[in-house]
Amino acid sequence: MPEKKKLAIIIHSGTLDKLYCAFILGSTATSMGMETHLYFTFWGLTMLVKGAMEKASLPSDYKHLEENMKKKLAEMKYPTPYELLKRMKASGLLKIYACSPTMEMFGVKKEDFIPEVDEIAGASTFLGVASGDAITILV
Amino acid sequence: MPEKKKLAIIIHSGTLDKLYCAFILGSTATSMGMETHLYFTFWGLTMLVKGAMEKASLPSDYKHLEENMKKKLAEMKYPTPYELLKRMKASGLLKIYACSPTMEMFGVKKEDFIPEVDEIAGASTFLGVASGDAITILV
Amino acid sequence: MPEKKKLAIIIHSGTLDKLYCAFILGSTATSMGMETHLYFTFWGLTMLVKGAMEKASLPSDYKHLEENMKKKLAEMKYPTPYELLKRMKASGLLKIYACSPTMEMFGVKKEDFIPEVDEIAGASTFLGVASGDAITILV
Repeated sequence: MPEKKKLAIIIHSGTLDKLYCAFILGSTATSMGMETHLYFTFWGLTMLVKGAMEKASLPSDYKHLEENMKKKLAEMKYPTPYELLKRMKASGLLKIYACSPTMEMFGVKKEDFIPEVDEIAGASTFLGVASGDAITILV
Repeated sequence: MPEKKKLAIIIHSGTLDKLYCAFILGSTATSMGMETHLYFTFWGLTMLVKGAMEKASLPSDYKHLEENMKKKLAEMKYPTPYELLKRMKASGLLKIYACSPTMEMFGVKKEDFIPEVDEIAGASTFLGVASGDAITILV
Repeated sequence: MPEKKKLAIIIHSGTLDKLYCAFILGSTATSMGMETHLYFTFWGLTMLVKGAMEKASLPSDYKHLEENMKKKLAEMKYPTPYELLKRMKASGLLKIYACSPTMEMFGVKKEDFIPEVDEIAGASTFLGVASGDAITILV
């Protein structure tokens, strides 16, 4: 059991590699009994829209590796990002925040989101969580 | 009031989306009474040069969204990155560091910078701040 | 001497600018007597393959600056990323982890790696280190 009980991740990127990075850390954390807080902002926020996560792709610098990577992940029977997210949610330890100014900037509404989103919140909510002795990272 | 009293951000990127991410977190932190330390390095450092921040743009993968994003931000009367930086500065809680080895690598001098820069410093200064129980992230 | 005694970096990126960022922070930390833990995953992991770090390059958005940057670093007699890594290793304070699921995904084997790699590990190992009051960042 780790000494810190919380993991807080800002998900700024909306690419497949970064989503996997955040969700693998997050699902590992919840399986270790740690509270996990995911704050989606900017390009990351667009991934909360229904159907978007399933279409996440690699950044253009790595686009040529995407087909092989997806084939390999399927062979490994590796969960998709959305499956990892639902697994975290099932633990009861995950909280998902959608960044309110980004929603306004991109014209996205609460009803556009997947049902797993817990709260629409500003940066102060994230800082409140992070300041309570959490491991914090930004992807 | 959060338990941790400091936010320390390494600004490695020099793109508009990452500047906004750092400055929104930073200005929220100062408005909550938290000390905010911004350490500009690599592409981020080039944004401290006078006039550079005003020309910050999106990375090429998102370039096609830039015009709409800027229009939307103007409609929202959202402050520009430099306006956010000056707002943080006015709080008396912001400290800005410019990475000395990056300055040498890019041939940038102190007199090229905006006047809000507080200190030219190496990584040890950042680690000293971060180790004093700060929330740390890198954008 | 900083209050926190550990630095834990997730190296997700495999580009020259991000490697330098991580290794400059890391070598500064070891020179300050701090334990440094580098967890290589995704594109970062591919940089642990023998000979890969020497060929690290800039992301395409900054590719046009690469030749000048490398020339300038040579003039400054700045150590290469691999030299910085060996310097950290010589301090006895560096531990290098290779992400096991990424290895499977990319079909990379332990014998492909540089000899400085200490451990093949999953995300739980990283979280264990990070939760022990470390400064954590992701590049």
